[in-house]
Amino acid sequence: MKILVGKNYEAMSELTKNILLGYMSNDRRVNMSITGGKTPVLVYDKLVEVVKDSPNYDNVHYYNFDEIPVSGQAEGITISDLRKLYLNPANINEENIHPLTVENYTEQDRALAEVGGLDVMLIGLGGDGHFCGNMPNTVNFSNLTYRIEITGEESWFEPGMGDIKEFVTMGPVSVMRVKHLILIVNGSAKAKMVKTALTGPITEEVPASILQLHPNLTVILDEEAASELSL
Amino acid sequence: MKILVGKNYEAMSELTKNILLGYMSNDRRVNMSITGGKTPVLVYDKLVEVVKDSPNYDNVHYYNFDEIPVSGQAEGITISDLRKLYLNPANINEENIHPLTVENYTEQDRALAEVGGLDVMLIGLGGDGHFCGNMPNTVNFSNLTYRIEITGEESWFEPGMGDIKEFVTMGPVSVMRVKHLILIVNGSAKAKMVKTALTGPITEEVPASILQLHPNLTVILDEEAASELSL
Amino acid sequence: MKILVGKNYEAMSELTKNILLGYMSNDRRVNMSITGGKTPVLVYDKLVEVVKDSPNYDNVHYYNFDEIPVSGQAEGITISDLRKLYLNPANINEENIHPLTVENYTEQDRALAEVGGLDVMLIGLGGDGHFCGNMPNTVNFSNLTYRIEITGEESWFEPGMGDIKEFVTMGPVSVMRVKHLILIVNGSAKAKMVKTALTGPITEEVPASILQLHPNLTVILDEEAASELSL
Amino acid sequence: MKILVGKNYEAMSELTKNILLGYMSNDRRVNMSITGGKTPVLVYDKLVEVVKDSPNYDNVHYYNFDEIPVSGQAEGITISDLRKLYLNPANINEENIHPLTVENYTEQDRALAEVGGLDVMLIGLGGDGHFCGNMPNTVNFSNLTYRIEITGEESWFEPGMGDIKEFVTMGPVSVMRVKHLILIVNGSAKAKMVKTALTGPITEEVPASILQLHPNLTVILDEEAASELSL
Repeated sequence: MKILVGKNYEAMSELTKNILLGYMSNDRRVNMSITGGKTPVLVYDKLVEVVKDSPNYDNVHYYNFDEIPVSGQAEGITISDLRKLYLNPANINEENIHPLTVENYTEQDRALAEVGGLDVMLIGLGGDGHFCGNMPNTVNFSNLTYRIEITGEESWFEPGMGDIKEFVTMGPVSVMRVKHLILIVNGSAKAKMVKTALTGPITEEVPASILQLHPNLTVILDEEAASELSL
Repeated sequence: MKILVGKNYEAMSELTKNILLGYMSNDRRVNMSITGGKTPVLVYDKLVEVVKDSPNYDNVHYYNFDEIPVSGQAEGITISDLRKLYLNPANINEENIHPLTVENYTEQDRALAEVGGLDVMLIGLGGDGHFCGNMPNTVNFSNLTYRIEITGEESWFEPGMGDIKEFVTMGPVSVMRVKHLILIVNGSAKAKMVKTALTGPITEEVPASILQLHPNLTVILDEEAASELSL
Repeated sequence: MKILVGKNYEAMSELTKNILLGYMSNDRRVNMSITGGKTPVLVYDKLVEVVKDSPNYDNVHYYNFDEIPVSGQAEGITISDLRKLYLNPANINEENIHPLTVENYTEQDRALAEVGGLDVMLIGLGGDGHFCGNMPNTVNFSNLTYRIEITGEESWFEPGMGDIKEFVTMGPVSVMRVKHLILIVNGSAKAKMVKTALTGPITEEVPASILQLHPNLTVILDEEAASELSL
Repeated sequence: MKILVGKNYEAMSELTKNILLGYMSNDRRVNMSITGGKTPVLVYDKLVEVVKDSPNYDNVHYYNFDEIPVSGQAEGITISDLRKLYLNPANINEENIHPLTVENYTEQDRALAEVGGLDVMLIGLGGDGHFCGNMPNTVNFSNLTYRIEITGEESWFEPGMGDIKEFVTMGPVSVMRVKHLILIVNGSAKAKMVKTALTGPITEEVPASILQLHPNLTVILDEEAASELSL
């Protein structure tokens, strides 16, 4: 595990953008799985500046690693978020976008293997220790890409999730196959979980603890998120 | 995970030899970690036939992944076993042999990283679910290469082990960094553990269950060892 | 460059089979480009014994690297030869066979890139120094996969080729992208060309001389083919 | 070959820095060969800002690919230039710096192989088509790392070079082994050579033409250097 600490959100976003651009600049197909949410917003803003309308990055293919379908909508929450944050402003060709869905998730691991696997995956960390859609005590570390039906009885269930009936996600086995994993976390609110996940026991109660086993994991933090680590 | 089943011990040993020779035939330094014990005896007999006194495999470097020191002896049980089974009959140059010892184990992970990492590791499976020296309930999945002092209170301790006070072993994090992992198992006595380790929950009670997470694991079995699997 | 010399045709074929099987045993898609002709006949006989009707090698995809169309026939000379020598007796699934043709050759380099590139390519050496369809003075070292119309004026043209009007072949740039190149040659008739191609100047008069630049080239010879080399 | 065109020197330097930082951020030893001269000055200025006194990049090892000894001085022209431009201002540990010298050049290819090979090499292009120390008509494409004694009769010899008696350089075979090659060129004066080297015949008269054969070459140009290409 390699831990890079940026002074602040701007610095960690710049570091993250650089790593992604490094991959994107290869002279070959590059398969990249990216995350929605708040943490990567500035990473995408910076990437858009370079990538928008550039012919230089047609070799990059984009994948989402989890998805929550919304009834009555053609596309789920994650891919919609990624389109808004990055894919639309960067004018990415539709043929370079590969949505994971409730319909195709059983084919995801094989489909990725057929194109040479994921080169890089950008993920965040949940305050409860989840990563991708791998939720505490719901995940099995032996999962490939899988689907969960939500019962409302889950420890991580919150009332506001009432409309969500199911989701799909790449599981730990799928994530271990990614050649380079980039975990980004900012803010003091997640500092304790950063420490627990990266230095505590490996247990399904803290799904992200499994990331300690990945052979090429780069963790990018701001100083607040790193504050509980002894570096 | 890819599971190859040979008809018998001869067939599975032939398959294993082929995979190892495939790596050894690359035009670059190849770092290989190999196992002692009974299972690989025929693999080594077959390899010796090809490798003995051949200048073709000077690019291959050998590592052991665990070691049990013996008081009053210059070398431990594992490397002595490897010398007898393979390194001596194949006339391997001493400079291509890199013993792991109680003295150098804290340097092992860094030393491997400095030479580009292990390309391939050949391991066996214990009837109790151990692999390398990762013993049930003694291992932490978050271990790099580590040392264990034996107290005699361990669940896996047996009276015959009375002389063994300590051992060192590459841990799960170290093993996940190996580019290709080859697990060989033969015989009906281990058929149940093959099933448990490869298809059961990932838990420190069954250390080899963690191998399910490796991104490039080839399991080579004879028909007896595979008999509990539904393939 | 790594040069392996087997005592005879049997020994060099066994070595070659082992390297190919090593790749085929990976737990991921493996893309393999193979050669027709006489040299690999025994390699394929040996491979068929292992692969025929085995479910273990469904991850292997086969490509030909050149093709000569025959008027009035659905398939060309190379793929027909490969079917007879290996693909038919080994019962390879049609979906794992990817013929290069005069119709699709302009798409070949992109198509290979899309599936992660070729892992391994098995090639032979022509007595005139050609490899794949890269003919003396006809090839440009800067060629990707390309098509040649035969005029009859070529230095390498022979009367018996009168029916052949055109062919397609992967070019030097395409071949340099292969991760591991295996060149097999047997017999004293090619011993001089082995020496010229592997140790002489790099020139388009001896197309195979460009192989000296490949970063991972394994040459497998019998003692006769190696007889002009000072090893 | 992937060609990235930045609007100007600042933009191409930013792109280059990003690619290098991407590699440097891996959680493993990274071997990087870098170039002296004028073209990379801004790349190094940008890198120093990130790397100076940071513990994050201790995994990066630096190599020079050519060297010109200076009589009476402990170190040659290239490494001295690299120290001034980057290694000193970035406070790189001496143990991460691996100078190529007239004394050790015969060991260079083996030494690089022992540490897993070069991950990335940054090179420039000479107005006469040279790259590294591979000079027109002096280079053989079949060279590994080699030494040249200067006679003064070379086509590329200039009076100002009168004090230089010899130099060493990695050759084409060595450079083809680098996993990712980054060629940077700026300015209109080199626009014609960019076109000749990247699209013309592969010949020892234009040493850089051999780069067309590299399987992972990224060319980074400003608009002036790209002006003769039809992109």
